[in-house]
Amino acid sequence: MSAKRIKVGIVGGTGYTGVELLRILAVHPNVELAAITSRKEAGMPVAEMFPSLRGHVSLAFSDPAKSGLEQCDAVFFATPNAVAMSQARSLVDAGVRLIDLSADFRLKDIAEWEQWYKAKHASPELVAEAVYGLPEVNREQIRGARVVANPGCYPTAVQLGLLPLLEAGLVDRGHLIADAKSGVSGAGRKEEVKFLFAEASDNFSAYGVAGHRHWPEIRQGLALAAGGEVGLVFIPHLTPMIRGIHATLYARINSADKGADFQKLFEARYRNEPFVDVMPPGSTPDTRSVRAANLCRIAVHRPRESSAGSDTLVVLSVIDNLVKGAAGQAVQNMNIMFGLPEATALGHVPVVP
Amino acid sequence: MSAKRIKVGIVGGTGYTGVELLRILAVHPNVELAAITSRKEAGMPVAEMFPSLRGHVSLAFSDPAKSGLEQCDAVFFATPNAVAMSQARSLVDAGVRLIDLSADFRLKDIAEWEQWYKAKHASPELVAEAVYGLPEVNREQIRGARVVANPGCYPTAVQLGLLPLLEAGLVDRGHLIADAKSGVSGAGRKEEVKFLFAEASDNFSAYGVAGHRHWPEIRQGLALAAGGEVGLVFIPHLTPMIRGIHATLYARINSADKGADFQKLFEARYRNEPFVDVMPPGSTPDTRSVRAANLCRIAVHRPRESSAGSDTLVVLSVIDNLVKGAAGQAVQNMNIMFGLPEATALGHVPVVP
Amino acid sequence: MSAKRIKVGIVGGTGYTGVELLRILAVHPNVELAAITSRKEAGMPVAEMFPSLRGHVSLAFSDPAKSGLEQCDAVFFATPNAVAMSQARSLVDAGVRLIDLSADFRLKDIAEWEQWYKAKHASPELVAEAVYGLPEVNREQIRGARVVANPGCYPTAVQLGLLPLLEAGLVDRGHLIADAKSGVSGAGRKEEVKFLFAEASDNFSAYGVAGHRHWPEIRQGLALAAGGEVGLVFIPHLTPMIRGIHATLYARINSADKGADFQKLFEARYRNEPFVDVMPPGSTPDTRSVRAANLCRIAVHRPRESSAGSDTLVVLSVIDNLVKGAAGQAVQNMNIMFGLPEATALGHVPVVP
Amino acid sequence: MSAKRIKVGIVGGTGYTGVELLRILAVHPNVELAAITSRKEAGMPVAEMFPSLRGHVSLAFSDPAKSGLEQCDAVFFATPNAVAMSQARSLVDAGVRLIDLSADFRLKDIAEWEQWYKAKHASPELVAEAVYGLPEVNREQIRGARVVANPGCYPTAVQLGLLPLLEAGLVDRGHLIADAKSGVSGAGRKEEVKFLFAEASDNFSAYGVAGHRHWPEIRQGLALAAGGEVGLVFIPHLTPMIRGIHATLYARINSADKGADFQKLFEARYRNEPFVDVMPPGSTPDTRSVRAANLCRIAVHRPRESSAGSDTLVVLSVIDNLVKGAAGQAVQNMNIMFGLPEATALGHVPVVP
Repeated sequence: MSAKRIKVGIVGGTGYTGVELLRILAVHPNVELAAITSRKEAGMPVAEMFPSLRGHVSLAFSDPAKSGLEQCDAVFFATPNAVAMSQARSLVDAGVRLIDLSADFRLKDIAEWEQWYKAKHASPELVAEAVYGLPEVNREQIRGARVVANPGCYPTAVQLGLLPLLEAGLVDRGHLIADAKSGVSGAGRKEEVKFLFAEASDNFSAYGVAGHRHWPEIRQGLALAAGGEVGLVFIPHLTPMIRGIHATLYARINSADKGADFQKLFEARYRNEPFVDVMPPGSTPDTRSVRAANLCRIAVHRPRESSAGSDTLVVLSVIDNLVKGAAGQAVQNMNIMFGLPEATALGHVPVVP
Repeated sequence: MSAKRIKVGIVGGTGYTGVELLRILAVHPNVELAAITSRKEAGMPVAEMFPSLRGHVSLAFSDPAKSGLEQCDAVFFATPNAVAMSQARSLVDAGVRLIDLSADFRLKDIAEWEQWYKAKHASPELVAEAVYGLPEVNREQIRGARVVANPGCYPTAVQLGLLPLLEAGLVDRGHLIADAKSGVSGAGRKEEVKFLFAEASDNFSAYGVAGHRHWPEIRQGLALAAGGEVGLVFIPHLTPMIRGIHATLYARINSADKGADFQKLFEARYRNEPFVDVMPPGSTPDTRSVRAANLCRIAVHRPRESSAGSDTLVVLSVIDNLVKGAAGQAVQNMNIMFGLPEATALGHVPVVP
Repeated sequence: MSAKRIKVGIVGGTGYTGVELLRILAVHPNVELAAITSRKEAGMPVAEMFPSLRGHVSLAFSDPAKSGLEQCDAVFFATPNAVAMSQARSLVDAGVRLIDLSADFRLKDIAEWEQWYKAKHASPELVAEAVYGLPEVNREQIRGARVVANPGCYPTAVQLGLLPLLEAGLVDRGHLIADAKSGVSGAGRKEEVKFLFAEASDNFSAYGVAGHRHWPEIRQGLALAAGGEVGLVFIPHLTPMIRGIHATLYARINSADKGADFQKLFEARYRNEPFVDVMPPGSTPDTRSVRAANLCRIAVHRPRESSAGSDTLVVLSVIDNLVKGAAGQAVQNMNIMFGLPEATALGHVPVVP
Repeated sequence: MSAKRIKVGIVGGTGYTGVELLRILAVHPNVELAAITSRKEAGMPVAEMFPSLRGHVSLAFSDPAKSGLEQCDAVFFATPNAVAMSQARSLVDAGVRLIDLSADFRLKDIAEWEQWYKAKHASPELVAEAVYGLPEVNREQIRGARVVANPGCYPTAVQLGLLPLLEAGLVDRGHLIADAKSGVSGAGRKEEVKFLFAEASDNFSAYGVAGHRHWPEIRQGLALAAGGEVGLVFIPHLTPMIRGIHATLYARINSADKGADFQKLFEARYRNEPFVDVMPPGSTPDTRSVRAANLCRIAVHRPRESSAGSDTLVVLSVIDNLVKGAAGQAVQNMNIMFGLPEATALGHVPVVP
């Protein structure tokens, strides 16, 4: 297809965002996979850990120190938090463009980051420079970015669902509620009892009610859209499915704006967005309707509330947490950064059933 | 054990609330199962349709017309809506006490019932007399009731979670939000495509956003507790598990009441309730922690909201929709009606894992 | 992309094999989707029934009678059994090439077909002509076929797992055992109680022990490979997952052949097959390692059996029942029939997790 | 109820068999729970780790060294393998009767045990004395036993399904096949990646094909029944459900015995067994039909095999791995040992749906 291929490295390829990046990049016509690193698994063929990649990925995991990442055009970090920030500087200096799927560069307020992530930040100056990789907000800045902070999964679903309302100033920005439900892959490929099949299956619960790290990230994005601080209650829940996030968003309409056409507002906002689909009125989008695809589907509702009428708007926003909520969005960002058609290698039709 | 047994009939025993009633009643020491009716399956041994009951229930389904229900002491209706209302009169006149698990006697406002259930009500006078079977509210009236309207599953979870707040008048009753998630058995044993395993598994969605029949039932109960109309947004969701409801409830605390001790309020309200468990502060109850048991577990949270502080209270309320949300609560009501210890045959330890 | 596109019609597009065909064909570079028929849903946009296809398929279901199927180059039947056989003749006469995903043309013995499918066959002469669409056996005949009988899901997994043994004559062909497990989508998008989520989830059972329609189909294929009648016990099971078949196959090695290298035998047999992957010794392939991909993975084992040694060979064979077991194999057949590279539009990387 | 209660200790109460023992024993009328030990969690209330037990179990985990186990009447070991064997001697000497749910006392051949469990056995003399706790075989010896080796989950399902055939000598004991499928709780409450929800859900695979520790245990039991060595292929599989084992068993009928009435044979063998249910001819028992209950259901089939007839018998055997396959059977053994009615506290009706 194209003459020159982008030389791509992946740091930390053994988790779910790693294998999902590989699923997408393995068939990307403009990408050459140069290195997939894992200190722990160095030497093991990637397809041995992930048999689903047999025949698609022939690389072995390599030691980060010997992987030649600085010769790559782009490096994805699919690492735990607080890893990318230490390695970013030297790669950037070597001319590599970074897309970080962890949280290291998402929060502009370093003090807030350090409080939530309980670590000293290693590259505050790169935080200042980094672009928050939500293309629906920052497409132009992403084009030239050296460091892209790929958004979290919840933040993607919640922000895309609330942005039009806040940008237009039609709701009470001081009292937003995001009731979000995530599939278990959102917890990562972590050996924790509560994510075992026998624990998480046939079960449902809230978690992180006292404070979830995605809360400041969402508030930062919403505040930018609203032009001022927002009040947000964010309650995440674990639901027994592998992939998918369903955010149910509640906002109180300003009394002056009860006559607004919210369906139209959303349709207009996302008309030119290839990966946001505003559903017809009355829709209740399934998470599976975006399974394995880089897509956010949104429906806008105004439910009955009392005999006297309604002032609450309900927005339903669904994504695949591993695609539009992680690896897919990361590739979307890479496509933008390298001047490729934005949808390259992201044409997956959702897998149903 | 006891000398005299209660002669019990079940009308409509082929659905999930029916088989769950049988699971509980089959080992109830004071119950004699006299008849289980099903027009369609008359003659088939119950244990042939439900092999789980082999060795526990020896009855066959019988034709309602020939079942001798009027000789029973108590009859449970586990029928679709609009069935019990037609058969109730003659049974009541024969001295039988009724527990209706359908919605026929739940709404006091006949016009509202007829609008939501799209039928003419056949026994408005019994609606007036019927007692809403939420023991935590109506225990005394249940004792003497001839007709008990057993609450819906969502209404049980939502009301138990909000009642203390409304009774105490501490929150804005005009803006309540109930974001509720139900396992698929809540839809009944119905042959509908959307409840097939291949549709409902690994998937999550809202439904009934435009209006769910449990909405007026919840509003009726909350209004009684609040002493006036309430505003309620109720968004139910389908989650891929068999049993369980998780209600996440949002209420805005009155400015004057921000200093209240909500944990204490809930503990005091339910101190003597055998089937409501107020969890320790910080808890996030799993639905499986009540699986197969007649129990509602509740946790009270006051999450961060903005830098300026918080006025939203979040209550998590979980039940097994088929037990405390249906058959278990029905047996609890029967126990109360017949002067038995309220917990008789309801001592199930939740099944975990 | 290519100059001329294949004009494709799909008869019966409302089931799981239908939507899966659409998932694959929607992005096939050489296909023009001309018609998707459904008598019952005529007029409804396909993407309204299957929101996952929004943005990918713009057609509406059309009435079969008015769909202009005879102007298509290829027509897929994704219909219940006994439909294709009635419509095939006129389409074939109009020069259309047929790929039937139902069972109408799979059994060469008309009497046997009529016994298992309880109907009179409408096109016995086309049965004689039809080619059984297992490319690993009949690739050359498929090229020129006017009617391809696309294999069943179980028959694909079982035959691919046993063929090398029977072709080489190394096992007792009179005593083969196929213990097969299928995800629930294999039952189709059928409104039956036993396939409801609340029935099929967290549950496992055998079914069809007395006789499953895939039994004669498998025996026919194995007999051809073995050069004579085979004895086969085939026990299918329902397992609580959406997609996937896992066949565990048992064969007794001929005493003279205990020294054979079975791993090598399988590797040699499938060396040039793009969609059969013989796994390394010791592997236990997951069904998810082929999820949403057109692939059969096979592992060969020789387990301990007694202190005295072993003569049983165990073959594990996994496919996605909707892809290599249905729609994917159908597209593979179409590619062969129309002289396209066999893997066109079938390059999906399995979706894991 | 009864005057004297059995004082019971549980060693290792933090796994699935531990919490299941507690679910059963918490409401056992003749049991006083005296201690539940866990070195790691000493001091933590049991109901804090397992909220399902709130209100039922008030004990905290205690340090094994300070738990006063030697004052108990009975002690259950719900520990990993190779723990019970070290602590058994002193408890037995103190007059405590032991029920070991681990594998330490199951294999009579010490050398074989050491080979499979890769450890030196600490109490060979107690192995000699220990009674294998399958009541359907060893009820009388269990009554007086000081040490009961509670059978493994697979061995329970497989042995109960094959014993009648081997005792009667009607099948080729040299070529038995057990194709078994287990829910994920069978792997224990272990932090391993492959048992995570996102790995094990919507997936199916075989495992342990090269050799599973239950293989020698099953062979030992079958050999005793058959009166000589047996040949057995045992292939376990992991299926995405929480509880349940489904064993599909294949045996070749001796030519002389093709006329035997196998249904009758099984019914006669288990006529007086309270926890084995031989299903009517043609049944395919669901695992959920025994969910949360101490029960094995068995169905006997003789499927078609070839045009020439059949000599393979297929037996389907289902249990709940945590109940009849572990904790329930352990309580059944305790009841027998202490002269209680065998079904005490084991009257659970299976939980369906």
